[in-house]
Amino acid sequence: MRTWRIGLYGLGTVGRGLVEILREMEQLLPSRAGARFEIVSIVDRSPERKGNWTLGKRISDDPDLILKDPDIDIAVELIGGVDAARSFVTEALKSGKHVVTANKALLAAHAAEIFPLAKNYGRHIMFEAAVAGALPVIKSLRRGLVANEIQGLYGILNGTCNFIITRMQQDRMSYADALRLAQQKGFAEADPAFDVGGHDAAQKLALLSSLAFDGLVQLDWIRTRGIVGLDRIDLQMAEHYGYSIRLLAVARRLKEGLLFRVHPALLHADHTLASVCNEQNAVFFDASNSGPLLITGSGAGSRPTAAAVVSDLVAIGNADRPECWPAAPLAAPRANQAEYEFYLRFQAVDRPGVLAHISRILADCGVSISSMHQPSGHEPVNVVLLTHRAPEDSIRLAAEQIAVHEFILADPVILPIETRL
Amino acid sequence: MRTWRIGLYGLGTVGRGLVEILREMEQLLPSRAGARFEIVSIVDRSPERKGNWTLGKRISDDPDLILKDPDIDIAVELIGGVDAARSFVTEALKSGKHVVTANKALLAAHAAEIFPLAKNYGRHIMFEAAVAGALPVIKSLRRGLVANEIQGLYGILNGTCNFIITRMQQDRMSYADALRLAQQKGFAEADPAFDVGGHDAAQKLALLSSLAFDGLVQLDWIRTRGIVGLDRIDLQMAEHYGYSIRLLAVARRLKEGLLFRVHPALLHADHTLASVCNEQNAVFFDASNSGPLLITGSGAGSRPTAAAVVSDLVAIGNADRPECWPAAPLAAPRANQAEYEFYLRFQAVDRPGVLAHISRILADCGVSISSMHQPSGHEPVNVVLLTHRAPEDSIRLAAEQIAVHEFILADPVILPIETRL
Repeated sequence: MRTWRIGLYGLGTVGRGLVEILREMEQLLPSRAGARFEIVSIVDRSPERKGNWTLGKRISDDPDLILKDPDIDIAVELIGGVDAARSFVTEALKSGKHVVTANKALLAAHAAEIFPLAKNYGRHIMFEAAVAGALPVIKSLRRGLVANEIQGLYGILNGTCNFIITRMQQDRMSYADALRLAQQKGFAEADPAFDVGGHDAAQKLALLSSLAFDGLVQLDWIRTRGIVGLDRIDLQMAEHYGYSIRLLAVARRLKEGLLFRVHPALLHADHTLASVCNEQNAVFFDASNSGPLLITGSGAGSRPTAAAVVSDLVAIGNADRPECWPAAPLAAPRANQAEYEFYLRFQAVDRPGVLAHISRILADCGVSISSMHQPSGHEPVNVVLLTHRAPEDSIRLAAEQIAVHEFILADPVILPIETRL
Repeated sequence: MRTWRIGLYGLGTVGRGLVEILREMEQLLPSRAGARFEIVSIVDRSPERKGNWTLGKRISDDPDLILKDPDIDIAVELIGGVDAARSFVTEALKSGKHVVTANKALLAAHAAEIFPLAKNYGRHIMFEAAVAGALPVIKSLRRGLVANEIQGLYGILNGTCNFIITRMQQDRMSYADALRLAQQKGFAEADPAFDVGGHDAAQKLALLSSLAFDGLVQLDWIRTRGIVGLDRIDLQMAEHYGYSIRLLAVARRLKEGLLFRVHPALLHADHTLASVCNEQNAVFFDASNSGPLLITGSGAGSRPTAAAVVSDLVAIGNADRPECWPAAPLAAPRANQAEYEFYLRFQAVDRPGVLAHISRILADCGVSISSMHQPSGHEPVNVVLLTHRAPEDSIRLAAEQIAVHEFILADPVILPIETRL
């Protein structure tokens, strides 16, 4: 039975999880995988972190410990960030090593360099942990659904946002309190901007939709809005109308072309993704032959992410040749315009005529209202509107024209209602 | 790029789906899989079924067309049933061919022969389509979750039963009407006994839990009850108490040992599996490192099942060596006794003292009642009871003792309440 020799770069929480899992599964893993996996070298900025539980492994702060060792078969990159990781991953491939990484930021930015490089050198580059942590969404998409055109995919890809929204909805917490709780529980970073701004979800969507559509998707094609600005009143009003709110990452084939979005959206309570709560992740694929497929579970954390890394090690150990990742860019989507029903909330001063004004501007922009509600007990008043289907741009134009009026006190909240599935 | 030559045995709905998918994906599949797949020979009892759409392929009713052809790399078995399929699969392996099959009955009965045979001949045996059709549950379990001990798995594995139960619940249909509708829609066989008796789900559970627990599970270890005897009143009463009913296939590691069950069970409305409706299938894994993982989608049908077969062809085309399926039997579980809360329904004549009698017998068997309901408007009366946690055997003993009384008019309905997840 072959032993695969591994060099691990990054001894943070996931790296430690990997060391632990490989030790605990020392018996079971070879019986399932038909191969052994041994970490022989560890590189970390702070090699003293190793303590005594990595006994017997070489350790250094110099990446060359891995890169220059011809006996290492697989380099595992778990340092995160883009620049140092890029250098490590490309050097590892060039020196003939297979690579496993959990780094979605790296691949969202540099897949166009890294995938062809791996191909040219005949090496594996695997990254199951980069999207939806423990969930085997990449293997399910590229292997399980290999015999399908993917018509669309819908993901809840950021556990931080989903946790915050769930707590705002279920416990009536304010955004600030829910964020603080997420930070206390380790679900949110000290600086949460990258998560709550939707950028983390957008990177994952770029990567996942590149695989779904067989061509590289650029990050700047994805219109990205985060959950900042959501108020618990939005969750309450959504519930009043029978909806939940989720930060969705969406990639769809429409007649007009491809559509990419990250946005908080209203989902009807019996929508497949509405029941995905707290830090859970989920991906829904709309597949031409296999039909709908939903995968949901734990998105992140040391052990779940490390388990996904191990699944990549095993995949490399079993493969005859590397995966065929898409290397060419997709054609850029033309101005991708979508129609939705919308939820709108305006915060306004409490005086007569405001609603008439708002309705008039919406009508002038061709947007028709299906429902209006002014929840009581709030000062200033909130005007909540549901619209009939309208082009996204018409809604944003109308909202801008409304927002310039002095009776509007804050940026309008504009949430599409996802009706698919 | 290598071309894999395929011999297909069985030109039923799935076989036709396979021919169609391979033709439609002629461009896309090789770009994803790095290999081509070509059906060169077809064997079918009624070769005239081929029509003209299999043009160019050899066709016969003699399996030797495949078995004796040294140029065929992969034999695909889609004839179903056990005896002829067993002979074909074992002969194919012995003649050096890889095998893909969708045949859960074959593997539930003969994995102990077929897995070691494949191993000895160094050939692949793949069967993603045998459990939960299009859902990549086997690949997710053996690859995605390879770095986990599986603590338990819960499946909705029979689309026929799930469709019938969903229609009984949502449309208040009788069992007979829902079954007839399922037959009209092609979700149920003319003779539905195998599905509604839970035997189909039990075969799939035997196979899936063998993979989850790394040792072969015998079909007769699985206590199996189907949905026959369920009345729409059970669905209504379940709903009254906040539950749905689903036919669950359960395999769990308990302190006392392994537990295997197929049974209709009550699930709280917010239970992960309660929202799996109609002909959908689902599998939930409780994994030691990755955490909970739920996969749900379309279970069956020509295209979904054929797409799963293609995923196996691609897996073979990419693999360095065959999967390590478990070949040794698990130790037989000791008398596996489970505790549940239970839902009980007795149909009784409408006269004073019946409830007192029932309560007394339950008390004598150590079963305590948490809730009792006698829905009005039914003649004869139905007495519905929810119990506190009690051993399954105590419940069945009590029910037997109650059922012998002349005031009981039909077999009692006994449904466990699954509280996990």
